[in-house]
Formats: sequence, C-alpha cells, structure tokens
Amino acid sequence: MDKDSFFWKIVDGRLPPPPCAGVLGIEFAAIDGERGTAEIKFEARPEFLNPAGNVQGGFLAAMLDDTMGPALSATLDVGEFAPTVNLNVQFHRPARAGPLKGVGRVVQRGREVCQLSAELFQNDRIVATATVTAVIRKM
Amino acid sequence: MDKDSFFWKIVDGRLPPPPCAGVLGIEFAAIDGERGTAEIKFEARPEFLNPAGNVQGGFLAAMLDDTMGPALSATLDVGEFAPTVNLNVQFHRPARAGPLKGVGRVVQRGREVCQLSAELFQNDRIVATATVTAVIRKM
Repeated sequence: MDKDSFFWKIVDGRLPPPPCAGVLGIEFAAIDGERGTAEIKFEARPEFLNPAGNVQGGFLAAMLDDTMGPALSATLDVGEFAPTVNLNVQFHRPARAGPLKGVGRVVQRGREVCQLSAELFQNDRIVATATVTAVIRKM
Repeated sequence: MDKDSFFWKIVDGRLPPPPCAGVLGIEFAAIDGERGTAEIKFEARPEFLNPAGNVQGGFLAAMLDDTMGPALSATLDVGEFAPTVNLNVQFHRPARAGPLKGVGRVVQRGREVCQLSAELFQNDRIVATATVTAVIRKM
C-alpha cells in the first residue's frame, strides 16, 4: 500500500475519478488499504433497466467488479495495477433503480494472483454476490 | 419459440427496446430462435473507461450477459422469462471505446435450467468470453 498510488490519488481527490465511475454513480464510503476492504455506494439509473423493470444483471456485475477493484487497488504500490482475469457473479434477487451498496474484500493476496469477493445490497437485502481473480502487474 | 413473445416483439419493433439496450448501444445483427443463437453489436462509450483507458470489465460483462440473454429469449414461448442466476466472465485482453460484437448461443436447454455461452470481439480479436446459467420461469 502506498498513499501516493494512482488509486489513493483518486480517493483523495488529487486525481479525477475515471469515466466509468460516473456512469455507475460511484461514491467511496469506506476504503481500508491495510486490510484490503472497500465499501462503495452506487446509483442504478433508470437506463439500466431490463424489460422486466429490474436492473440488467450486467450492471450489477459491473458494480461488483467496481467494489472488488478498489479493495485490491487500495493495497497496491505506486506503479502496480491489477486487471481482473475472471469474474463470477451469483444473482439472488432483482434490483430496482436507486441506490445500492457494495462490500468487497481481498480474500487471498498472492505476490501476483489475488482472490477477491464482494456482496451487493439494496435496502439492506443481498442482491448479488461475486468473486474475482485478479493479477498484479507492474506498469 | 413464439414470434409473439415479448422478445420477438422488441426485435420486430412492435415493442420499444428496454432502457439498458440504449446504454450499451445494442443492435441485433442476427437472431435465430430455432437454434438459440444471437449476434449482437455494442458500442463502448468513452464513459465506460477505467483509469487505464480501457473499458471497465463490468461493462464487458454486461455486454456478454446481453448477448446470451437474447440467444435464450429468442427460444422462449409467450409468458416465459429466464433470469440469469450465474454469470462467469473470462477477460482475455483490454477493450477500447468503440464497437464490439457479441456472439452467443444456448449450449444446453433444459426444461428449466439452461446453460449459455458467448464470446465478445473487438476488431475481430477476442476480448472476453463468458458462460451463464439461466432458469426459465412462467410469468
């Protein structure tokens, strides 16, 4: 972990957030770079809805990916990045337009290969869960 | 398969596309309800980019989910729908803003449980692949 890493500069407002953060309405609620945990708020827009009026599952997957990414990014040193190589999402119940909360953590942090997991909530009910395999690379 | 199903009414323009289709720039290139296959065009917007300038993986997951969904939906009867219960995505190389193409198929169609798979291409190079488990329900 290095507070001068790319990720922490975004958290601290020293760098602008990436474009994809805007689409998902991301807001960092709690980030712990020592423990590798993240709590992220999202906003599901009406444009994310499928014909049934629920949030299309892919957008929930995007939110879960963007919950686990910060949990790992918070632990990285300057010049490191960690692309996701596998994402597995389990869908438990439909989500509506409105606020959601992602809770993510680094489950296993190898020198290169890392295993992450996260849960996504709406109104304190679990909507979807996911695991990610990511690999740390040097820029 | 029933050409009067909800899905085919959208394909034929008898019903408007769902909101999520607009965000991902979806265009139906080829749908076969007998074989359960779909070829879908997407447009990755600049707003989908992560700090590295690549499409955030979650949006690729959303595209893959929206490639497999139509492949299965095309085979459904009136009053049936098939929510995704599991989505597994493998990321192979970064994708840039611009057009992508998804190719999806029903691999195994049970009476309720269905297994689907899809590939996502950019400039004819494979970007990501995925499998989905979906379960057919009656409305």
